[in-house]
Amino acid sequence: MDSLGWTYLLQLSALCKVITEAGFEARLEGEDRQVASVNTLEDAKADQLSFLTNPKYAAALAGTDASAVLVHDDVSVPDGVSAVRCSDPYAGVTVAIVALHGYRRHPVWGISPQASIDPTAKIGAGANIAAGATVAANATVGQKATFYPGVYIGEGVTIGDECVLFPNVVIYDDCILGDRVTIHAGTVIGEDGLGYAPHGDTWIKIPQIGRAILGDDVEIGANCAIDRATLGQTEIGSGSKFGNGVIIGHGSKIGPNCLFVGQVGVAGSVTVGKHVTLAGQVGVAGHLSIGDHVRAAGRSGIANSIKEGADVFGSPAVDIALAKRMYMAVQKLPEWVKRIRALEREVKALHEQLGRSE
Amino acid sequence: MDSLGWTYLLQLSALCKVITEAGFEARLEGEDRQVASVNTLEDAKADQLSFLTNPKYAAALAGTDASAVLVHDDVSVPDGVSAVRCSDPYAGVTVAIVALHGYRRHPVWGISPQASIDPTAKIGAGANIAAGATVAANATVGQKATFYPGVYIGEGVTIGDECVLFPNVVIYDDCILGDRVTIHAGTVIGEDGLGYAPHGDTWIKIPQIGRAILGDDVEIGANCAIDRATLGQTEIGSGSKFGNGVIIGHGSKIGPNCLFVGQVGVAGSVTVGKHVTLAGQVGVAGHLSIGDHVRAAGRSGIANSIKEGADVFGSPAVDIALAKRMYMAVQKLPEWVKRIRALEREVKALHEQLGRSE
Amino acid sequence: MDSLGWTYLLQLSALCKVITEAGFEARLEGEDRQVASVNTLEDAKADQLSFLTNPKYAAALAGTDASAVLVHDDVSVPDGVSAVRCSDPYAGVTVAIVALHGYRRHPVWGISPQASIDPTAKIGAGANIAAGATVAANATVGQKATFYPGVYIGEGVTIGDECVLFPNVVIYDDCILGDRVTIHAGTVIGEDGLGYAPHGDTWIKIPQIGRAILGDDVEIGANCAIDRATLGQTEIGSGSKFGNGVIIGHGSKIGPNCLFVGQVGVAGSVTVGKHVTLAGQVGVAGHLSIGDHVRAAGRSGIANSIKEGADVFGSPAVDIALAKRMYMAVQKLPEWVKRIRALEREVKALHEQLGRSE
Repeated sequence: MDSLGWTYLLQLSALCKVITEAGFEARLEGEDRQVASVNTLEDAKADQLSFLTNPKYAAALAGTDASAVLVHDDVSVPDGVSAVRCSDPYAGVTVAIVALHGYRRHPVWGISPQASIDPTAKIGAGANIAAGATVAANATVGQKATFYPGVYIGEGVTIGDECVLFPNVVIYDDCILGDRVTIHAGTVIGEDGLGYAPHGDTWIKIPQIGRAILGDDVEIGANCAIDRATLGQTEIGSGSKFGNGVIIGHGSKIGPNCLFVGQVGVAGSVTVGKHVTLAGQVGVAGHLSIGDHVRAAGRSGIANSIKEGADVFGSPAVDIALAKRMYMAVQKLPEWVKRIRALEREVKALHEQLGRSE
Repeated sequence: MDSLGWTYLLQLSALCKVITEAGFEARLEGEDRQVASVNTLEDAKADQLSFLTNPKYAAALAGTDASAVLVHDDVSVPDGVSAVRCSDPYAGVTVAIVALHGYRRHPVWGISPQASIDPTAKIGAGANIAAGATVAANATVGQKATFYPGVYIGEGVTIGDECVLFPNVVIYDDCILGDRVTIHAGTVIGEDGLGYAPHGDTWIKIPQIGRAILGDDVEIGANCAIDRATLGQTEIGSGSKFGNGVIIGHGSKIGPNCLFVGQVGVAGSVTVGKHVTLAGQVGVAGHLSIGDHVRAAGRSGIANSIKEGADVFGSPAVDIALAKRMYMAVQKLPEWVKRIRALEREVKALHEQLGRSE
Repeated sequence: MDSLGWTYLLQLSALCKVITEAGFEARLEGEDRQVASVNTLEDAKADQLSFLTNPKYAAALAGTDASAVLVHDDVSVPDGVSAVRCSDPYAGVTVAIVALHGYRRHPVWGISPQASIDPTAKIGAGANIAAGATVAANATVGQKATFYPGVYIGEGVTIGDECVLFPNVVIYDDCILGDRVTIHAGTVIGEDGLGYAPHGDTWIKIPQIGRAILGDDVEIGANCAIDRATLGQTEIGSGSKFGNGVIIGHGSKIGPNCLFVGQVGVAGSVTVGKHVTLAGQVGVAGHLSIGDHVRAAGRSGIANSIKEGADVFGSPAVDIALAKRMYMAVQKLPEWVKRIRALEREVKALHEQLGRSE
């Protein structure tokens, strides 16, 4: 139901056609019903489509009230529930969600007269800039930008086409954002890093004169902070996606298509390859190098450089198989201590016995 | 002393009456003095009331300059200091603080003409909305709302009665807040979670069409971020209280009266029971279930579901007693290694001795 | 090159004079060239000065395109590259950066008519307050303050001279900032701490009536949160510097010249001495005392008070040398388990052999 009260219904056969045309072949099994929207197996009601992408949760299928489910070919579906069969159900449901719901619609402000836009700033066609947003001198903003209230675009900043900055996002001077960058509320790009020279017991600030650069199609969560570089640039590669509360230190260079989950912290001068996954609360020490396709499990503390393709865990992080063996051994350590003590007693007894027998 | 320079003094006997009427019987022992305010044992001056709620800190009682202390019945108090005796001193001092200090007073803006309020938004009676706050289309705001500058209320949001949103709080579209919700500055509610479908080496965004719902009497610290659900809703139960920098992943359901300390991170699709305490920097992995009254010590990494009532610690978190034994054993591990080596030498010597004796 | 397109060049001999006059003797070795700016060894171009402060990175010197490098006396420099020799190269390059780049220039707003400044607030001479900044009643702001858009200064707040508050910084009522304090975007000072009294299964809020006080020359990163005290004050000592996402609990007192790296979390009622370094993601439990000059390595979990001068690591944190021995032993634990099992077999065999020989 949209905000005018209309409900749009889509026939399952039509939905199969849309998913197939997007490149993921889908076929209908069972009754050709109408569905209004997508929901989880637990929460779905009778006019909704649900889905199962991970066989681990198959138990929930039995109890769903959904009238249709999108599933892999080899999943059995309860009687009376229509099945949309797709060999890549995760991709298929993504297409279905967009078909049924569309993408988020933003308020339409045009360029609000209550926005503060410096006369030297260049704003592209189709801009949508709210009251209370600020664009400082010499900034360049591409086409179809959406800036929510409280957004601050610093002097000399460059923003690409079709970027969406949610409320209170701050971009410091001279930073650069590519096309189709989305930044969630409260995130800060290009603040000074922690750069000080020790001088006796005090700290002398090193001016942070570099910038931060975000590639195309980057999406950053809420309340993150990405330092500008001391010199040169901090980089976030195209297509990389960050969760909430992520921080990136000055001068670090993150490759394309990385996935950093919430509260990840990367220190300064780190080099991260492409398609690296850092799970929640992972920390990376400064000046390290992390190869392509590395995956670090949650709360890992990365203290050494990591080779391409490695899976790591623990703090300090090591190969995940070793980490698990170490952890299992530690859990049994109190028992091993008992066995060492028993050995000591037995060896002592052997000594005594041998003394007697000699 | 208030901002006009007046000092209000309260007789200890009158204070005892107020505390007793609030349901926590209090009686005066010693001189019936006047007190102006409440302070810690260490910092209190002669006209102040102090208190001891935790016997662990009893040593500080001896040196206090406070003229009166609020304490449990069985605590002995230095000569010359008046005692307000109460069987629940923590509750008693809370009542005393409110009696002497009141609750925080907010600036009075009425509905500022410099606030941006969409004409379709419904604002309840007694609203106090600052310049620079925004309320978008079709939002509903209850009675006596206080919105500080920079607050953003998205389209279709529902806010209950007597909510206080400090500066720069952002509520994304369609989210719902109950009554008497307090949210500290910079916190974001309802941003998109980290929902992407892998497609080769790139990530396809899954539209996040759910919402976030906060129950009555929830209080959230500064710079937190609570995801909207992909589908359905992220929930924070009534009476739950969060510290600063807490993040909650999409679709997680947190029960009532939980206490999450600063920098806690909960991944997506987690179910947390009621009155669960997660201490500072605790992390919870996705899709887990945490029972009622669970308590996790600081920096625990919860990687498996936890049964009702359990106390856990460590990363991965285990029963706190086991965790402590494990940790003690690890600390002595270098010593055990020496003892294993000694055993190996002795066993070798026994072999040799036995060889000779045969 | 500045925003008008001018490039300023500085002769190396003139730069040596500037560095020497700042107290760090510098002398030129090689050709007296002109340089335009400072850059890293890797990124520097022909008209740039680079530098080496850490011998660990000496390898990068050989391949630099910089025409000049600032280095320690005993570092050998490639042919054709001019050397500015300085016995403290880190301090020397700081002076050089300021000489060539200056400090960040802020936009000039004067006192914007679109700022919301209460008539009872006192604003010092030379203030630079942007549209969309708010100064509430009875606040006092020193000379030459710079407040970016979205800054909120609460009732009764006192701000010293020459403070810089970046966009969307929030200072709650009654807090105090010293002179030359810099706070990066999105940081919140003086929000309520997590203070609740348990009452059955619910939580009663304890009014947080203290404040937060920041000394002179403090610099705080982006999206941090520093609680006000329940009673009395939370303190950040003069000259202390924090990274991004740092949180400090209510009533904690941090000494002067501390360095807290990103995502550090300090609970409430902690006392920290002077010049303490807490590396990234370190957590400190409540009510502890940490002595002067303590250093905690990244991700340490400090669960006990720490004496002056100690270096600690691990979670729970212990002496760093012990922590490293413990960690090495754990890594070999699966191997030690094998050796214990082997010993058990041998002892069993000895028993049998001894039984036979008797």
